[in-house]
Amino acid sequence: MTGEIWDVIVVGAGLSGLTAAHWLRERNAKLKILILEGKDRVGGRTQSYEIPAANGKDRWDFGGQWVGSTQTHVLELIEELDLQMYPQFNSGRKVHHIGGPRARVQTYTSSIPALNPLVLLDMSLFILKIDRLCATVSVDDPSLTPDASELDSMTLHSYIEQHAWTRGLKEELGVAVRSVFGVEPAQMSMLFFLMYSAAAGGVLALLESTPGAAQELKIKGGTQQLSERLAERVGWGSVRLGCAVKAIWQVQCSNKSRVRAKIEYKPPLPTQREYLTQRMPVGHMIKFIVTYHNAFWKDRGFSGEIVTGASTGCPFCVTFDATSSNGNPALVGFISGQQATYWTTKERRKAVISSLVQYLGPEAESFIHYEDKDWAQEEYSGGCPVNVMAPGLLTYYHPSLRMPCGRIHWAGTETATRWCGYMSGAVQSGQRAALEVLHELCPSVLTEEETEEVKSSYSVKSPLQPSTSAKRTLLGVPTVVGAALVLSAALLISQCPEILDKVKLYFTNLSS
Amino acid sequence: MTGEIWDVIVVGAGLSGLTAAHWLRERNAKLKILILEGKDRVGGRTQSYEIPAANGKDRWDFGGQWVGSTQTHVLELIEELDLQMYPQFNSGRKVHHIGGPRARVQTYTSSIPALNPLVLLDMSLFILKIDRLCATVSVDDPSLTPDASELDSMTLHSYIEQHAWTRGLKEELGVAVRSVFGVEPAQMSMLFFLMYSAAAGGVLALLESTPGAAQELKIKGGTQQLSERLAERVGWGSVRLGCAVKAIWQVQCSNKSRVRAKIEYKPPLPTQREYLTQRMPVGHMIKFIVTYHNAFWKDRGFSGEIVTGASTGCPFCVTFDATSSNGNPALVGFISGQQATYWTTKERRKAVISSLVQYLGPEAESFIHYEDKDWAQEEYSGGCPVNVMAPGLLTYYHPSLRMPCGRIHWAGTETATRWCGYMSGAVQSGQRAALEVLHELCPSVLTEEETEEVKSSYSVKSPLQPSTSAKRTLLGVPTVVGAALVLSAALLISQCPEILDKVKLYFTNLSS
Repeated sequence: MTGEIWDVIVVGAGLSGLTAAHWLRERNAKLKILILEGKDRVGGRTQSYEIPAANGKDRWDFGGQWVGSTQTHVLELIEELDLQMYPQFNSGRKVHHIGGPRARVQTYTSSIPALNPLVLLDMSLFILKIDRLCATVSVDDPSLTPDASELDSMTLHSYIEQHAWTRGLKEELGVAVRSVFGVEPAQMSMLFFLMYSAAAGGVLALLESTPGAAQELKIKGGTQQLSERLAERVGWGSVRLGCAVKAIWQVQCSNKSRVRAKIEYKPPLPTQREYLTQRMPVGHMIKFIVTYHNAFWKDRGFSGEIVTGASTGCPFCVTFDATSSNGNPALVGFISGQQATYWTTKERRKAVISSLVQYLGPEAESFIHYEDKDWAQEEYSGGCPVNVMAPGLLTYYHPSLRMPCGRIHWAGTETATRWCGYMSGAVQSGQRAALEVLHELCPSVLTEEETEEVKSSYSVKSPLQPSTSAKRTLLGVPTVVGAALVLSAALLISQCPEILDKVKLYFTNLSS
Repeated sequence: MTGEIWDVIVVGAGLSGLTAAHWLRERNAKLKILILEGKDRVGGRTQSYEIPAANGKDRWDFGGQWVGSTQTHVLELIEELDLQMYPQFNSGRKVHHIGGPRARVQTYTSSIPALNPLVLLDMSLFILKIDRLCATVSVDDPSLTPDASELDSMTLHSYIEQHAWTRGLKEELGVAVRSVFGVEPAQMSMLFFLMYSAAAGGVLALLESTPGAAQELKIKGGTQQLSERLAERVGWGSVRLGCAVKAIWQVQCSNKSRVRAKIEYKPPLPTQREYLTQRMPVGHMIKFIVTYHNAFWKDRGFSGEIVTGASTGCPFCVTFDATSSNGNPALVGFISGQQATYWTTKERRKAVISSLVQYLGPEAESFIHYEDKDWAQEEYSGGCPVNVMAPGLLTYYHPSLRMPCGRIHWAGTETATRWCGYMSGAVQSGQRAALEVLHELCPSVLTEEETEEVKSSYSVKSPLQPSTSAKRTLLGVPTVVGAALVLSAALLISQCPEILDKVKLYFTNLSS
């Protein structure tokens, strides 16, 4: 790379980074863009590959897999990239097992579990409360939410203890949180949970496979194609795989000409930004696909959906039908949170199959292939599906979430305001970061609306000093025009110690 | 280093690392020990240096400074190293300002603030509750504490909201937590707070400067001398300053002889260990010393102790008299937690002096020198005084806190069971790690008692699966005998992204 000069360097070839690169190129074909990726593939937390199946071999998603009809950002991209979708199969009886290993296994066909009426009532009231709170949340600046400080000072667990009355509902909520976030309710801020739900349009949207919800549709051929096709559009020549960034040195340009003086960040980023990433642990999910000759669960009237509480001893929290668009029968499931921490050994395959037998019948034993992926073991990711926020982050450090640091602009689904944590959020964040960079490099290509959008995203208020009204720009790093950098999935990067050593970009070429 | 073979490599020349090295050398003079330190000095989170003072110049502690008479581990070391102590000055009126900028500033001379009787009653009852809970805590294995899961699922803030009744007490507790931990009550687990208090012998011991408490005594000439004298004992020739570890590769030795095969951890540490460090953010403290010609506060009858709530607009939460053992008058104070995040600009000097004037008199304006240190800016530390634990850590990931990973043994005050977070805890942890390494390398030098101690520290139970009684060794990494490594302050290291790149040790020399 020595001697080469780039206008924009994108760190990370996941969905947000590639979206940013694609947008930049679309809007200004003259920009020289380089995309650096540590892994030997594009796609980040989406990965699709073949395993043995009924008709020989077929491809499944081992990372992000669903999209929903309200996820406009990713839907537009799917259309632009000429990909097809098909619905999540959810007809038939769903299995539901909560309340310890000896509790009765229940089945139901509606979207509401066959719970005891008291638990059902409790659940309805609880969801009503959450949805009312969600309606008050400011997703752009969560600190403006009424009672923000109080909501950010408690865990979701504490809120559940105060507002859920039945043991049944508490266990239901544990399963739900584990399924969506890969962590336990004890491990995240209540305000973060509300912000995340609000960004998805309500808490039920996170959980269901009905129209508009997060588990509604799948992409034929797998979600990794989104990144692969974006890389094609941008040009594979701009993508360097297996090229992990080791350091980022920003160069001070006093007058837009290249000079020799360098700023080495010591520490490389503002304190607020460092403290933000220290409080965003990543979830732990193990995803499995089991392929079969026949969809025996359908023959038995099951949809393939199983929901189980941690107390049952079952390793997974949820499964779904995963029959491919080519008709190859399969089940998909997740081992998550506390359960993922427990089931780190290879014995988990046996435990998964044994639970499938228990809930769906003895045919579950006769699988073609079992394949799982522990995302905690994935280099440059360190976990899945999302980095959550611990209590006391949103009210103190949130202003630094999207605030550029000099030439560094932040993408990644964690920075999204619509469907944060999902593929759609990744797309939205990549687009926003691209607009920011265009605003720096060639503001004339932006519409007036877009310029306003960029400016307003910088002016998030910092609510740090409760008793004074004085506003302080804590992150007033002077923006150096001349080159820009998009750190996609950067939150994830800074969470993973084993990654950090490899994730540094020597920016020295900018001054050579 | 190429070609050199070491028996033990200590990463980090702070108090725990140097204690470990010293103990190893004392117990087995034949061991070849190398100590690698990224900073250009020893001492870690202790640092003492000279600033202008009444008699020309004098030395103050800008990091850890106090020891208490119940901190046996550090007291024994102080005696062994021939250092002298002197008491914290605390006679005279203390200043107390809580309840907003317009609240009355109060003064008192006892150890109990002159609070309104209702707040005093509330405080007494609250401290009683905490001390009763502390008595039930298992410091060695916090998951064995009654209601461990519940206590670890809430923030300290949530507990305070449930058990403190007056607004006054709530603000008092905010100040106390900020002063001790450098974080807000919202940012840590209630179970962690109890464990930390229990390790100190009770919650009051953390807060007071009375006999037995954490702020009782100071070391003449500064606390950094502890590390400097340890380095002398071990031999400066074994200490490499400015030598930051970049990677740790463990070498598989099948039969104690050196072979060429290497294991590169991908990820380098077990998932549980990674997830542990992701949930241990470091506190944020800025420490300041102001030197004066006269201890004018003493003339006015003040002790120099000021306690202020965040709502007052005052930047610091607490100050003390810091007159040196040579008689040079000074005040010491702390800007901490939320306030440290706010006061990152250089304007804080003006704000500090203005508050000192407000509370102690106009003479505060005529200082000789103001010096402060923002520990968030300190390379290889990233914050101070301690890494705290977020909710949902202790019950899920605690077993990996002291569990060796192959040849890597963990020191650092965060791993201590007595005075965790303090210098005394650092000494205890260094000694424990040294015993573990001796147990691997030359078990015959250990007494039977010590051997038992090492074995029992490895057998912490893993409480991960609530409904099954089966015990699982999650961290069953085979221990490879032949060489060992002590990672002191390793928790701290893995918390600081800007550090990580520099903190890696190429272990290749072991196989060369």
